[in-house]
Amino acid sequence: MNTDMRAVADVLRGAGARITQAVRPAVYGKEGHANFVTETDLAVQNEIGEALARLMPGVGFLAEEGEAGALTDAPTFILDPIDGTTNFMRGRRASVISLALAEGREPVRAWIFNPYDGTLFTASKGNGAFRDGERLRVSHVPPEAALIGFGTAPYYEALMPKTAAAVGALLPVFGDLRRSGSAALDLTDVASGKLEGMFEMLLQPWDYAAGSLLVTEAGGRVGRIGGGPVDYGRGCGFVCGTPAVFDRLSALLAGI
Amino acid sequence: MNTDMRAVADVLRGAGARITQAVRPAVYGKEGHANFVTETDLAVQNEIGEALARLMPGVGFLAEEGEAGALTDAPTFILDPIDGTTNFMRGRRASVISLALAEGREPVRAWIFNPYDGTLFTASKGNGAFRDGERLRVSHVPPEAALIGFGTAPYYEALMPKTAAAVGALLPVFGDLRRSGSAALDLTDVASGKLEGMFEMLLQPWDYAAGSLLVTEAGGRVGRIGGGPVDYGRGCGFVCGTPAVFDRLSALLAGI
Repeated sequence: MNTDMRAVADVLRGAGARITQAVRPAVYGKEGHANFVTETDLAVQNEIGEALARLMPGVGFLAEEGEAGALTDAPTFILDPIDGTTNFMRGRRASVISLALAEGREPVRAWIFNPYDGTLFTASKGNGAFRDGERLRVSHVPPEAALIGFGTAPYYEALMPKTAAAVGALLPVFGDLRRSGSAALDLTDVASGKLEGMFEMLLQPWDYAAGSLLVTEAGGRVGRIGGGPVDYGRGCGFVCGTPAVFDRLSALLAGI
Repeated sequence: MNTDMRAVADVLRGAGARITQAVRPAVYGKEGHANFVTETDLAVQNEIGEALARLMPGVGFLAEEGEAGALTDAPTFILDPIDGTTNFMRGRRASVISLALAEGREPVRAWIFNPYDGTLFTASKGNGAFRDGERLRVSHVPPEAALIGFGTAPYYEALMPKTAAAVGALLPVFGDLRRSGSAALDLTDVASGKLEGMFEMLLQPWDYAAGSLLVTEAGGRVGRIGGGPVDYGRGCGFVCGTPAVFDRLSALLAGI
């Protein structure tokens, strides 16, 4: 499939303004904040979905908000309109738009746009990963100095003890941990050599579809916690890392 | 003591350029990176120390690098030239300069400068906390939605199980966790209403002296893990939070 990478990037840049220009409720209220996030999420998703349908009609569309169909072998866009919604809600300026094009149930093109600093990450299967056009490579930092990003799967209380156990198992082995609140942002950091790995006990395809391709095209590895390939049709425990870190990190997580 | 807050801020702005303009070694090497960090840390510390000595001669000076004297009741600057050294080393752009002026062994003036975005946080005992002159207040977010920042005390392996246990105890109670890699940066987030609390099992006075005053002047509370007031003369387990979060967070941490 011939993709106009630049045209898709322009769509994300345009939609990013909805994120940076959204006016948060001045006073915290659970309902008010939830509505604010959902409305912006949907507006970004709709704008991107409509533009992509004009640009590449007939391509499927799987996204975080709304009813998601099953992923088939046919070309399908997988979108997270705001990855890092809590950060967005709280004005933490650490959220991104994450978009992948999947074919044969695997990502073959990826775009992650950071609307706060205007950085665009792209990847194309077999042709590398890039930040604003500059080729990316994962780091060669050894495990004992490695920084590992993690998510806490905050919507799944049953997984919290596993996340805590992982923190205890990883801290003595690796350099340190980071927790940004955006899985897709963490994956750009792995691809950029600013983190050596990332995991979360449960993530959804729109969280990792674009970032996975970015990491593998930058020389890293991705997998499912417990072993096996990542599932892009439904959620799974997700782990990725540099060649120096991946096996050890995966084994430690699988043992929890 | 009469402090020229602006003159001190100008000193930090000038020294901040050493952080943003430092050229990191291209290839990761443990020794090369450690030397790079130590050299920049010392250069920033020396520039600030010499400028403060000219500006306010006779005031004591306690800082992260070099031999630290004991804190007395006399006016003393407490400086962390680069809080978030691992972030600095790894190009993560999440480090700050943290400076407090203590009198009677407690911070009475505070400056935290973020050299990456040029933001300056200031506080003066009894006169409020400010970001670039704008008054700061901690948030009113309730505990179940609260974001808690944490440090991992990465240099103390004996404390790692406690940190992991804290993660497990806190995740079901509060909204979520964040780990930036800079305690002083987290404290500016608490004062700014972007986090509701922060803890680390062991921190040093230069990590929290300025941030503590920022948090309390923004309406938050600070304490020692296990109870009692924060010690500004030597390190301690550190916890802070908004009025809605502090007691619960402190009690959970004390119970670990």
